Amino acid sequence: MPVGNLSFPEMIPIAGVKLSAVSAGIKKSSSTASRLDLVLIELPVKASVAGVYTKNAYCAAPITLCRQHAVYSSHSRYLIINSGNANACTGEQGIQAALATCKAVAKQADVDYKLILPFSTGVIGEPLPVEKIEKSIPELFENLAENHWSLAAKGIMTTDTCPKGVSTSLDLDGGRDTLIINGIAKGSGMINPNMATMLAYVVTNACVDEQLLQEILIEAVNLSFNRITIDGDTSTNDSCLLVAAGTSAINIDDKSSPDYFKFKQAVVDTLTELAQKIVRDGEGATKFVTISVEEGYDSAECLKVAYTIAHSPLVKTAIFASDANWGRIVAAIGYAGIEGLNVDNIRVYLDDVLIVENGGRAQSYSEDAGQAVMVKEEILLRVYLGRGNINETIWTTDLSHEYITINAEYRS
Amino acid sequence: MPVGNLSFPEMIPIAGVKLSAVSAGIKKSSSTASRLDLVLIELPVKASVAGVYTKNAYCAAPITLCRQHAVYSSHSRYLIINSGNANACTGEQGIQAALATCKAVAKQADVDYKLILPFSTGVIGEPLPVEKIEKSIPELFENLAENHWSLAAKGIMTTDTCPKGVSTSLDLDGGRDTLIINGIAKGSGMINPNMATMLAYVVTNACVDEQLLQEILIEAVNLSFNRITIDGDTSTNDSCLLVAAGTSAINIDDKSSPDYFKFKQAVVDTLTELAQKIVRDGEGATKFVTISVEEGYDSAECLKVAYTIAHSPLVKTAIFASDANWGRIVAAIGYAGIEGLNVDNIRVYLDDVLIVENGGRAQSYSEDAGQAVMVKEEILLRVYLGRGNINETIWTTDLSHEYITINAEYRS
Repeated sequence: MPVGNLSFPEMIPIAGVKLSAVSAGIKKSSSTASRLDLVLIELPVKASVAGVYTKNAYCAAPITLCRQHAVYSSHSRYLIINSGNANACTGEQGIQAALATCKAVAKQADVDYKLILPFSTGVIGEPLPVEKIEKSIPELFENLAENHWSLAAKGIMTTDTCPKGVSTSLDLDGGRDTLIINGIAKGSGMINPNMATMLAYVVTNACVDEQLLQEILIEAVNLSFNRITIDGDTSTNDSCLLVAAGTSAINIDDKSSPDYFKFKQAVVDTLTELAQKIVRDGEGATKFVTISVEEGYDSAECLKVAYTIAHSPLVKTAIFASDANWGRIVAAIGYAGIEGLNVDNIRVYLDDVLIVENGGRAQSYSEDAGQAVMVKEEILLRVYLGRGNINETIWTTDLSHEYITINAEYRS
Repeated sequence: MPVGNLSFPEMIPIAGVKLSAVSAGIKKSSSTASRLDLVLIELPVKASVAGVYTKNAYCAAPITLCRQHAVYSSHSRYLIINSGNANACTGEQGIQAALATCKAVAKQADVDYKLILPFSTGVIGEPLPVEKIEKSIPELFENLAENHWSLAAKGIMTTDTCPKGVSTSLDLDGGRDTLIINGIAKGSGMINPNMATMLAYVVTNACVDEQLLQEILIEAVNLSFNRITIDGDTSTNDSCLLVAAGTSAINIDDKSSPDYFKFKQAVVDTLTELAQKIVRDGEGATKFVTISVEEGYDSAECLKVAYTIAHSPLVKTAIFASDANWGRIVAAIGYAGIEGLNVDNIRVYLDDVLIVENGGRAQSYSEDAGQAVMVKEEILLRVYLGRGNINETIWTTDLSHEYITINAEYRS
């Protein structure tokens, strides 16, 4: 059960953007919440496509092709996504399999295969069942529709318990069309910055030059998907695409215009909401934890402290147990490796409850007050380092029995 | 249940080194395997004492005193150790509590209180019950005996399921007395290099100058306790002491003598065996995993890869499930952050089974062969980076339901 309300929103259709999902029989396990495992997204001819991909040295074969195809053209026409098989660590055979998938889509659509971007998510190291994919391509095309966002969100799920989507509409100053930004995402384990086991597809009806779009995407990913962690693992297949369909009268081209800032903020908000939904549906998550590290000397040390806390299994199990075992939190701060950290200046709060100051438990702190916060489903942990004026915020989960069960049983 | 045989060995007494343990009522929980919670170790007048302590910025009050007292004299006379309370993050009050403990021991023994080294392990952030300790000091002294090693090992336990000891005897070339090295250790969670939630007390009957002893200890800790990890947490209280009692005719003073090398190796072996016992009794451990990273460019990158694998919850849960899900291992190698890593050169073995080469699954690999290794209780994972000739080995455990249970329930 995810933490909080993750109901799939009403998605406003975007003209020219059609989606489809079928069950091609790639997923083996009956334990996944959705049997759909092959998704197609059709983009308008002039759409701009920006992408951010995993930094894992063992990047998956489809990622290699995505990078190549993006160099060829930023006006991709189709995204083909399978779940159930990552096509990662599959060597040259994997590249050929991803290529065959692209060619099958290209043939059906009668376009250049380099205008197809392939994506995969699922088990690593097993051959991609290309024939099953090829066989399902006609059905995929038949089902394409502008209102199939929810279907597509279901089709990219692996251990997710529910599909994740965000739909934003906004009137800009120009008084032209309403800006729409739709996003779907998947991922619930192997979630860490740079990036998660995560696929995210975000599409706007605005017209944005591809270079500007890429800039906006990098900045937005850095503030959203690169600020979440579940288990500290970074996958081989992470991808986040931002598509400007350009099928409205909205044109984002002037970086000094108020509309540019509104647009960028709306993209950041959309990605942040998707990222938080991924955390809320984190494998075995029973808590949604915001870790805010303030008064740091620089961003790097704030993030170092935040991630050290977020990755500590002892902190995570204490949160799972709703135990205000704050000693584990300060121990994590202490071993984060911050040069010259003076613990006498550090204050730690659980929500508004001051728990630590002057190198020890706060005078005002009571176990009951801490406990009252810890039993909540959503917890804010604030650390003031007392070294500067830089703040960073990340989002994470607890570590539960369910996490072990999911990851010990996945594949079997 | 620990992995492998952890039966407590017969400890050869060391002349002049007496130990004692009592139950002072510091431990609250009835869930610990031993009720003993206060330990005293008496050292001969001329003993040399070397120590290595936690690098956690929130170091515990007793560690602060140990460092001060070690500057005053390296000929400490008593080690006083309590379990059940870490006296960490207790501010100035904690320092006073540790000091009061030292003074109580000093008064009973009629020695300078700076010749006492205090140690604590247990829950962080709670006031040390000094009165209970003071009240138990006379009984502690009454029980001092040279054959109480096992009792002392039990007295320092927290979540350990069994006491841990190593006793080595060795004839050196000089034909003088037999060299004895005895060690006891505790620790089973919050275990990570630099160092673990770990207390270790190692005593030899040899006579070694304190400066040389400190050199040997640092080198030995680096090859043993700094090569293990259970959950990646580094505690506020870690300490490892090496004491040269000097109550034999063995004198280790010539760094070029064969005896020096034999002695140093014996210390390394003793510390390594203690370190491995800590891993074998790791919280919830069902597997003992050796991770060997070979053909690295330097030691740092070998360790980076080894610890990234060892800290991956996905790898650890797969090992718990005896699932040869090698994709998670290569994913961890891939995100270890090694600059310019060429995955085509990497080979990965489970015991002698080659699983990965040329960027993908080895041709010769079969799921059955991998599975046959994974079901074992002790697993050797070897990664060949193909970049140089440096090797590093670390030891770790799996991540089980029991780990969650222990750490969600500790304190309660």
